[in-house]
Amino acid sequence: MVATLSVELETLNTDVGIVQTHYATWEEPLRLQNGAELAPITLAYETYGTLNERRDNALLVMHALSGDAHAAGRHAPTDRKPGWWNDMIGSGRAFDTDRYFVLCVNVIGGCQGSTGPSSINPATGQPYGSDFPVVTIQDMVAAQVRLLDRLGIDTLRAVIGGSMGGMQALELAINYPERVKLAVLLATAARHGAQQIAFNHIGRQAIMTDANWRGGHYYGGPVPWAGLAAARMVGHMTYLSEERLQWRFGRNLQTQEQPGFSLEPEFAVESYLNYQGRSFVDRFDPNSYLYITKALDYYDASAGYESLIAAFGRAQARFLIASFSSDWLYPPRESQTLTAAAQAAGRDVEYVELDSVLGHDAFLLEYERLTPLIADAIASV
Amino acid sequence: MVATLSVELETLNTDVGIVQTHYATWEEPLRLQNGAELAPITLAYETYGTLNERRDNALLVMHALSGDAHAAGRHAPTDRKPGWWNDMIGSGRAFDTDRYFVLCVNVIGGCQGSTGPSSINPATGQPYGSDFPVVTIQDMVAAQVRLLDRLGIDTLRAVIGGSMGGMQALELAINYPERVKLAVLLATAARHGAQQIAFNHIGRQAIMTDANWRGGHYYGGPVPWAGLAAARMVGHMTYLSEERLQWRFGRNLQTQEQPGFSLEPEFAVESYLNYQGRSFVDRFDPNSYLYITKALDYYDASAGYESLIAAFGRAQARFLIASFSSDWLYPPRESQTLTAAAQAAGRDVEYVELDSVLGHDAFLLEYERLTPLIADAIASV
Repeated sequence: MVATLSVELETLNTDVGIVQTHYATWEEPLRLQNGAELAPITLAYETYGTLNERRDNALLVMHALSGDAHAAGRHAPTDRKPGWWNDMIGSGRAFDTDRYFVLCVNVIGGCQGSTGPSSINPATGQPYGSDFPVVTIQDMVAAQVRLLDRLGIDTLRAVIGGSMGGMQALELAINYPERVKLAVLLATAARHGAQQIAFNHIGRQAIMTDANWRGGHYYGGPVPWAGLAAARMVGHMTYLSEERLQWRFGRNLQTQEQPGFSLEPEFAVESYLNYQGRSFVDRFDPNSYLYITKALDYYDASAGYESLIAAFGRAQARFLIASFSSDWLYPPRESQTLTAAAQAAGRDVEYVELDSVLGHDAFLLEYERLTPLIADAIASV
Repeated sequence: MVATLSVELETLNTDVGIVQTHYATWEEPLRLQNGAELAPITLAYETYGTLNERRDNALLVMHALSGDAHAAGRHAPTDRKPGWWNDMIGSGRAFDTDRYFVLCVNVIGGCQGSTGPSSINPATGQPYGSDFPVVTIQDMVAAQVRLLDRLGIDTLRAVIGGSMGGMQALELAINYPERVKLAVLLATAARHGAQQIAFNHIGRQAIMTDANWRGGHYYGGPVPWAGLAAARMVGHMTYLSEERLQWRFGRNLQTQEQPGFSLEPEFAVESYLNYQGRSFVDRFDPNSYLYITKALDYYDASAGYESLIAAFGRAQARFLIASFSSDWLYPPRESQTLTAAAQAAGRDVEYVELDSVLGHDAFLLEYERLTPLIADAIASV
């Protein structure tokens, strides 16, 4: 009882507590990489900590595929779960809110408050659906730079992201070199190869062949939940290591002692995946899944440059790059490629491969080991 | 021209040529592992080579998930492709039809001529659909043993299988110990762990949530092709190594020079997967996919024994066990587990790990390296 209480008190003391989501809107069109213009655009964002007078203590945290602007704290005391990177953000944590101003923005194309396919298309008064333009990682970053401008933040002390967040952080460091001192890239890659594209494609196909998808204009009618659940299950598999799955579920049956030899799911790992699929359907828009995975697949940090080294040559930031041994979605070799290119371009770069059984999700879960690495890197710039 | 001709002649000389599928039917019920009885049962099978007078030169080849009885040769001279293991079966090949009588049987639960969910349920006069009983690897093997009895084959010189075929071969060696001299287990496992079950589950969910599945009674109406295609694509990913996918497709676009930034598939690997999905739909029944993957997931070679070692203790056959370095569906450690158990049980076992970039599919494709291994093992018993 006493132990529990003290843990809770400690959490209360270091946690950012109750937070709210802010919204910023621009009427000026955002010119997208594919030439289309998007207007108006709204960005949902959250901030933790205080921007100092010199406005030079800002950290920008970029979220991954299924993430959102709610990175830390709770919207209400009754919220079951805090934000997605709560363990990293707070007093004395990796992103120390006593010292830094932490910002997290929902990407455009998303469905958690920023403009995306479920937003109203001003041309029709109806949700965009598949008329929403295909946005890229570059476009997501360009939108966030608008928000930095509005907040009066010229230079970020650090930009940090894992997975797709790492691509955004890299993109910002390359294409806005004067605006960032440190880029922290976790469990990410300079671009997708065939296997990464293939798994995303299967998820997209599952959504687009769901009879309820109806060409992307399903709003107001039944949602292609089965397709989205399948997509989520496929994606989720790539986030987990075989080791972790086996340790956690093995061949355990969910309820029975002996297999019932039926077509129904009986194994615990099946129930777990169904739960993952179902709970994702409650919080994510199938069209956003299409658009965001497309952005991932199209991303290539070296596009428009002679090479990845040339791309890094434009950056000015220091880099901290970390990978996780059992991550098979973005294995360590992807981070090694990034590191080698950064070094060849003369960048100041630190690379760490963490031994972990947690697969790709390690970047979200290995906060105890990431904290000193990241805190030191941020303090050093 | 001359080179092509000589290759063709050589193929003609060693190929089994034009073959046909045979059918055997039993009215006596087959008692299944789950207690249900199945009657009548029909088995589709093919044979290559000649059964000798002593009936002791038979090799039984067991097929994998999507395979069938058509292992070698062509049904008609115009067939675009020969049987699925044609490179291994013929004069002077691994399964030498000059010396051996090679038999391959479609599994029950399948959809290529043997009794399965698309067969007529005698109780209703309609296809079974999901009223078909759940069959197991043990049941598939029991049905094939019936065929051995009918053909008067007491003892197989060898039983050979890769993937699910390896499980059947193992099962036959354990539960019919006096009927087999050599068991060749390629790229297989004693049982599925959480990751293998999980990928199968996703495929099943894709089929069962397809609106056309209609509880499994879709015959005569629209087929849940989208679900089956998704299932096939997920499965196909587990058959390929990341290396091979990257080498073959990388980030190549299918038709364009530059990405078009659309929701449509543009990458070559996407077109490839769509093709895999579509072509599977043409030849496979979605319900059979459910039943056969369930059989895979339920299989546990040690079930009913104190341990896997005890299970091997019942076998009398020699074992040749082979794995492939880049197979991540049934990685080498699965074959090492089989080998260690066979050795601990005192069996005569040879284990080979082949270095290959071809992933799980290597067992079908690495025929040049498998041929001497398997031919020697068969000759030695």
